[in-house]
Amino acid sequence: MSQPVQPVQLLVLITTLPGRGAEQVAAYERLAPVVRAEEGCLRYDLHGVSGDPDRFVLIERWASQAALAAHDAAPHMVESDAACAAFRAGPAEVLRLDADPLA
Amino acid sequence: MSQPVQPVQLLVLITTLPGRGAEQVAAYERLAPVVRAEEGCLRYDLHGVSGDPDRFVLIERWASQAALAAHDAAPHMVESDAACAAFRAGPAEVLRLDADPLA
Repeated sequence: MSQPVQPVQLLVLITTLPGRGAEQVAAYERLAPVVRAEEGCLRYDLHGVSGDPDRFVLIERWASQAALAAHDAAPHMVESDAACAAFRAGPAEVLRLDADPLA
Repeated sequence: MSQPVQPVQLLVLITTLPGRGAEQVAAYERLAPVVRAEEGCLRYDLHGVSGDPDRFVLIERWASQAALAAHDAAPHMVESDAACAAFRAGPAEVLRLDADPLA
């Protein structure tokens, strides 16, 4: 019997160069509708970090690893990742969370 | 007319000393039922970070700032915070997220 497909939950910690948070928001506003229309996309929400206009957390939830892999390889993501490098302070940190809480 | 009370969403990024993640899990298993019974606690979920037994993310959601403040001051939290220092690599990083996603 095959294992049930587990959803994938990611927290992507993003820091932009000082004063360039608005470019991150604009890029996300363009990208979010496209990503949310992708197969298996359950959540794609960018939140600001209170008190810091240059820090963000992108909360992603995917129905499966395959859906996430297709997302990562999608032309609009390859293009977006390249463009975002211009205003980010460094690579985003991606935390993949275990599906279920520990208690 | 008073402002609607906004829920508070926190991501608490936790790193333990090498090899001591199990102590964090045990402490959380004791604490979670007590915290979830607190007034205004909407979510209190500790997730492991895949591939790293010493990293965790605590996802908290509170009905109001007042509920969170009461939580932080509660004797069981004061006691827990002191005890957790023994096995953590440093202070947890608390990210307070803006209530709504940016788009």
